[in-house]
Amino acid sequence: MSSSGRVVKRVILGRAMRSDRLGETLLPKRLALPVFASDALSSVAYAPDEILLTLGLAGGALAATHSWEIALAVVVVMSVIILSYRQNVHAYPSGGGDYEVASVNLGPRAGLTVGSALLVDYVLTVAVSVSAGVQNAASAFTFLRGHEVAAAVTIVVLLTAMNLRGVRESGKAFATPTYLFIVTILGMAVIGFFRQAAGTLPQAESAAYELAPVEGMGALGTAAMAFLLLRAFSSGCAALTGVEAISNGVPAFQKPKSRNAATTLALMGGVAIAMLVSMVALARWTGVKIAEDPETQLLQDGRPLGEGHVQDTVMGQVAKSVFDGFHPGVVLVSIVTGLILVLAANTAFNGFPVLGSILARDGFLPRQLHTRGDRLAFSNGILLLAGAAAGLIAVYDAQVTKLIQLYIVGVFVSFTLSQVGMVRHWNRHLALERDRRVRTRMQRSRIINGVGAAMSGLVLLVVLATKFLHGAGYAIAAMATLFAIMVAIRKHYDHVRNELAVVPGDTKAQLLPSRVHAIVLVSKIHKPTLRAISYARATRPSVLEALTVDVDPDETATLQREWDARDIPVALKVLESPYREITRPVVDYVKSVRSDNPRDLVVVYIPQYVLGHWWEQVLHNQSALRLRTRLLFTPGVMVSSVPWQLASSAGVEDRLDGPVAGDVRRGEG
Amino acid sequence: MSSSGRVVKRVILGRAMRSDRLGETLLPKRLALPVFASDALSSVAYAPDEILLTLGLAGGALAATHSWEIALAVVVVMSVIILSYRQNVHAYPSGGGDYEVASVNLGPRAGLTVGSALLVDYVLTVAVSVSAGVQNAASAFTFLRGHEVAAAVTIVVLLTAMNLRGVRESGKAFATPTYLFIVTILGMAVIGFFRQAAGTLPQAESAAYELAPVEGMGALGTAAMAFLLLRAFSSGCAALTGVEAISNGVPAFQKPKSRNAATTLALMGGVAIAMLVSMVALARWTGVKIAEDPETQLLQDGRPLGEGHVQDTVMGQVAKSVFDGFHPGVVLVSIVTGLILVLAANTAFNGFPVLGSILARDGFLPRQLHTRGDRLAFSNGILLLAGAAAGLIAVYDAQVTKLIQLYIVGVFVSFTLSQVGMVRHWNRHLALERDRRVRTRMQRSRIINGVGAAMSGLVLLVVLATKFLHGAGYAIAAMATLFAIMVAIRKHYDHVRNELAVVPGDTKAQLLPSRVHAIVLVSKIHKPTLRAISYARATRPSVLEALTVDVDPDETATLQREWDARDIPVALKVLESPYREITRPVVDYVKSVRSDNPRDLVVVYIPQYVLGHWWEQVLHNQSALRLRTRLLFTPGVMVSSVPWQLASSAGVEDRLDGPVAGDVRRGEG
Repeated sequence: MSSSGRVVKRVILGRAMRSDRLGETLLPKRLALPVFASDALSSVAYAPDEILLTLGLAGGALAATHSWEIALAVVVVMSVIILSYRQNVHAYPSGGGDYEVASVNLGPRAGLTVGSALLVDYVLTVAVSVSAGVQNAASAFTFLRGHEVAAAVTIVVLLTAMNLRGVRESGKAFATPTYLFIVTILGMAVIGFFRQAAGTLPQAESAAYELAPVEGMGALGTAAMAFLLLRAFSSGCAALTGVEAISNGVPAFQKPKSRNAATTLALMGGVAIAMLVSMVALARWTGVKIAEDPETQLLQDGRPLGEGHVQDTVMGQVAKSVFDGFHPGVVLVSIVTGLILVLAANTAFNGFPVLGSILARDGFLPRQLHTRGDRLAFSNGILLLAGAAAGLIAVYDAQVTKLIQLYIVGVFVSFTLSQVGMVRHWNRHLALERDRRVRTRMQRSRIINGVGAAMSGLVLLVVLATKFLHGAGYAIAAMATLFAIMVAIRKHYDHVRNELAVVPGDTKAQLLPSRVHAIVLVSKIHKPTLRAISYARATRPSVLEALTVDVDPDETATLQREWDARDIPVALKVLESPYREITRPVVDYVKSVRSDNPRDLVVVYIPQYVLGHWWEQVLHNQSALRLRTRLLFTPGVMVSSVPWQLASSAGVEDRLDGPVAGDVRRGEG
Repeated sequence: MSSSGRVVKRVILGRAMRSDRLGETLLPKRLALPVFASDALSSVAYAPDEILLTLGLAGGALAATHSWEIALAVVVVMSVIILSYRQNVHAYPSGGGDYEVASVNLGPRAGLTVGSALLVDYVLTVAVSVSAGVQNAASAFTFLRGHEVAAAVTIVVLLTAMNLRGVRESGKAFATPTYLFIVTILGMAVIGFFRQAAGTLPQAESAAYELAPVEGMGALGTAAMAFLLLRAFSSGCAALTGVEAISNGVPAFQKPKSRNAATTLALMGGVAIAMLVSMVALARWTGVKIAEDPETQLLQDGRPLGEGHVQDTVMGQVAKSVFDGFHPGVVLVSIVTGLILVLAANTAFNGFPVLGSILARDGFLPRQLHTRGDRLAFSNGILLLAGAAAGLIAVYDAQVTKLIQLYIVGVFVSFTLSQVGMVRHWNRHLALERDRRVRTRMQRSRIINGVGAAMSGLVLLVVLATKFLHGAGYAIAAMATLFAIMVAIRKHYDHVRNELAVVPGDTKAQLLPSRVHAIVLVSKIHKPTLRAISYARATRPSVLEALTVDVDPDETATLQREWDARDIPVALKVLESPYREITRPVVDYVKSVRSDNPRDLVVVYIPQYVLGHWWEQVLHNQSALRLRTRLLFTPGVMVSSVPWQLASSAGVEDRLDGPVAGDVRRGEG
C-alpha cells in the first residue's frame, strides 16, 4: 500500500487494534441487530413468494385458502427455533455456533456435518440473496428483465472485489440500510392495514388473472394435497435462514454478551415474524397471484398470458397496490429490498472466513485459513465462495425458486444437530449440577431445546421428503463431498504430524554435519552474484566453489574470461549439459558431492534479485525458483537465497497488509 | 513421471537426444512435407468456400462467372510467394523465418511487427482450422450440426491436453493423414475430371437452388463490383496461410538443408495449387451454390429455403456429387479433411513455443519461454494460445467465414515485411559480392523477392481495404497490443540489466560482512526444527539464536517448557505479537539486528518440510513461504531453507521432466 493509501486507511478504518484493546470495538445491540440480522430479515423478500408459488402449482384456489396456514406454521417453527437459540447463546458465549455445539456434544463427525452444511449454505446465501435482490430490483427497474443472470453475477463480482480489497464490514455500514428496510416494510404494512380497514386497498394487477394448476396438479387426492402443503411449508421455511447468525457472533456483543445477544435474537425474531405475517396478509388482501410458470399458468379470459409476461415479486406487487400510483414508494421498497439482500449476501463473505478459520484450527481445512491476516489464503476462500455462487446463479438462471430447493436443507441440518447437541449439553450439566434453582433453569432450557430439536428434525424430514428430487439432493451431495474432503485433510495433517514428531532415540534430525560444502550458483557476473559470493565467504565454509552450467559454449567462455579478469577469489566450476538443461546437472553434482562425503552439509547459494511487482517477478528468476524447488527434494542440502533488492522493490513489503473481513463477526473489529 | 511411465516414454519416443546427436533425427523430404505442409494444404478445405461465398453476395451469376478468375489470381500470388520463399530458405537456413529476415534487414521494430503478426496468426490458425474441421466433418456426421461451437472447443481442449502432456509431433504421425488427404482429394479430382469428360458428373444438390444477392448487392456499379471481386480475392488468399512454415523449419531438414527445404516448398506449392484449382473446377462443374446466409439467400421456386436449411462445405458438396451415392467416399473425404485440419491446428501448438522461444531470446517475451524444457512457462503459452482460440471460436460461433476476415491480414503483414527484408538482404550482399556468377544469381533472387514483396504488399493493401471493417481491424488491434507489450517487456529487461551491472568502483556488492548472525525460526519442536538448528550450528555463526513468535500464550509456554526439557543448546527468544501476526515481528526483529550491527550478515534459517503432491504443499508451509518472501525484501538478510523430506516426496523430483512440443520444428527432435 502506498503511504498515502495508508493514511487514507487510517482515516477510514482507524489504527489497527491491539489484542488487549479489542473491548473498545464491541457492538451495542442497536448495531449488532443490523450486522447479524440482515440475512434473516431479508428472507421476507422471497419466502412469501415461495409459499404462494408452491401452493399455486395446484391452482389459484389452494394458494388463496391455505397461504395463511402455511405462514402460521412457519411462524411457529421460527418462534421455537429462536427460543432454542436463545439457550445456545447463553450456554456457548464463545461464538463457535452450531459447529461448536455439535462438535462438543455429539462428537467431531456431527460437528463436521454441521460445518459442511454451513459452508454449502454460505454459497447458497450468496446465490439466493443476490438473485432475489435482482428480481426485486427488476420490479422497479424493468430494464433489468432478461438480464437477471448478468446482473446477479455482476453483483457477486462487485462483492468479491470489495471483500478482496479488504473493505471490512462495520456496524454502521449495516445499520442504515437494515433499519431503512425494517421501517419501509413495516411502514408499508401499516399503510396497507389502514387502507384494508378503510376498504381502499386496491387489488394487485395479477388479481384479475386466473391461476391455472400445472399439468397433473389439477385435481389432487388428499395425500397429494397434503404433500403439496408440506412442500409449500418447506419452501416457506426459507424465512428461517440466517437465524443462527447471532449465535456465531456472541463475542462481538458488548457485555453482558449472552444477555445482549439473546435480547437481539428475540428482537430480530419479532421483526422477522411481523414482516412475514404482514407480507402474507397483504398479498392475500390484494389478491396477488404468482405462478412458477407465469407464461402458461396465468390466464386472462381463459387464455394463457403467454411469452413475454413477466411477473413481479410478491413484495413488488404488494408495494404497487399499497402505494397505488405513488411510484416513489414502489421504487423505495425495491431499492431497500435490493440493498438488504446484497447486505445479506455480503454476510456470507464475512461468515465464510470465520467458519473456515474455526474448521482450519481443528485441522479440517488448510491451516493457513486459520492464520489471521493471511490475505492470500483468505482471498482464495472468497474466490471459491464467489465462484461457486456465480456458478449456481448461472446454472439456475438466477431463479430464486430453483435455488431455494437446495437452500433450506443445509440450514435445518445444522439446526437439528445443534439442538440435539444442546439437549446433550443440558443432560451432561444436569448430571453434575446440584443447585436446585440452576437445575430448574437447566431443565427448562432442555425442554426448549428438546422441542427445538424435534421441530427442526421434523422440518428437516419434511424438506428432504418434499425437495430431495427438486434439488435438495444436490445440496446433500455437496455436503457429503465437503465432509469427505475435510476428513481427508485432517487425516493428512495427522499423518504429517506423526512423521515429523521427534521420537526418543531417533537422532537423525539432530546429527551435526562435520563439514560445510558451499556452492554458489552463477549464471552471469552481476551484483547479485558478487553479493552471493561475499555472503558465502562470510560463513567461512570448509569448501567454497562457484558453479555454472554450460548451456551455450560461447556464453560460458565469456563468463570464464570475465571471471578470471575480475580476480574473483573463488574457483568457477563448469558443469557440462549435453541436453541443454540447467536443473538436472546441478542436482546431479550436488548429489555426487553428498555421496562422496555423506556427513557433509551442502549449502547452495542462489543469487536472486527482488522486484516490486508481481508481473516483474513473472519475467525473472524462474530457473532459480525451479532449481530451488528441485534442490529441496535432495536430502542433506540447504538452499540459501541471497536477495538483491532492485529499486522497484522499495516499499513493497507492506503491500500485503490490510483489513480482514469477518473481524466484526469475530469480535475482532 | 512414474518409472513405468518412463519406460513407456522410452519405447514410444526413444531416449532423450544429446545435442551432439541431433543429426540423427533430421527429417527427410518425405516426412518434412507432411510436418510442415498440413497447415498450407488444409486451407483448400475452406479457401474455395470463401471465394464462392463472397462472390455469391451479389447473386449466383457472379459466383458462376468469376470464380475461375479469382482462383487464377490466388494461384498466381501463391506461385510468386512460393518462389520468393525459396530464396528465403537459401539465404536464411537457420530457421528464424520471417521474424529473423525482418529483424536482420529492417531492424527490430519490423521484426517485432512480424512477431506480433505471427503470434496472432497462430491463434487464428487454431480457431479457423478447428472450426473448418468441424464444419467439414458435419457434412458426413450431421449430428454435429448446431453443436459446432461445442465440438470445436472440445477439439481445442483435446489438443491442449495432448500438448500439455508433452506428446511431441513426429514426422510419422503427420505422414499418414497428410498423404491420405492429398491422395483422397487429388483422387477425387481425377474421378471428377473423368466423369466430367464423360458427361456423367452429377449436379450438386444446391445446383437446383437459385442464389439471390443479399440486400443492396443486387445491381452493383462497376466500382462496387470491382471491390467485391477484390474482397473475394482477399478471402481466397486464405489458401496461402501456412506457406511460410517451411522457412521456419529449415534446421529440421536433412542435408543439404536449404536445397531440400526449397524442393519441399515447391512440392507443397504444386500440390496446393493442384488441389485448389481442382476444387474450384469441380465446384463450378457440379454447380455448387454456397451462400453466406443460406437461409435467406438460397431460393427454391423463388422462395427462400428458410430456417433449418444447413449448407455443406464446397468440399462436402463436391464429394457428394463425385461419389454420387457412394457414401463411404463422402465419409472418407470428410474424415481426412477433418483430420488434416486438426493437424494444421496442432502445428500452431508446436509453432507457438518455437516463435515464443526466439522472441524470448531477444528479450521481448518472458525469458523462461526461451529456456528449453521449462514446462511451466511452456504450459502457460499453450493455455494462452488455446484460451484465445477457444474465445474466438465462441465469439465467432465457430463460423469460418467470420474468422477468415481476421486471419489473412497477419499472414500478409509477415509476407510483405519478410520479402522487403529479402530485397534489402540482396542489396547488402550485392554491394560486397564481386564474383559475377554469384552476382547474377543474387540479382535474379532480388528480382524474385522484389516481385514477391510488391505482390504481397499489394495483397495486404487489398485485404486491409476490403476487410478492415469486417474484422481485420481487430487483428490489427491485437497485433498492436502485442507489439506494445513486447516493447515494454524488452524495456524492463534492459532496465534491470543496467541496474544489476557491476560498475567499476562500486564495491557495495562485494562487501564482505564482518560477522554472521544466525536466526533459526521455530514454530514447534519437530524434526525439521532440530535439523535446522543442527545445520545452523554446523556453519559456526558468530551469534546463533532460535526465534519464535508469541501468537498464542499457551502454545508459547508449552514450546518454552519443551525447549528447556530437551536441553537444546541454543537460546530460544520469544517475540511478542500484540496483533497476532507472525511475519511483521520477525521482519522488525531482523531489521533491528541489522541496524544495530550494519556490517553483520543476518542468516534466517527456515525449517521447511517437503511433500510430494502439489495439493499437499497447499496445506502446508504457507506462513514460512510468506515470511521468506517478506525477508527477501529486507536488505542484508539471507534466507536459508532447511528442507525435511517427508516420505511422500520420494521420487517426485523427476515429475517435471518430459518432451517439449515444437522440437521437430526446431530440428531438436
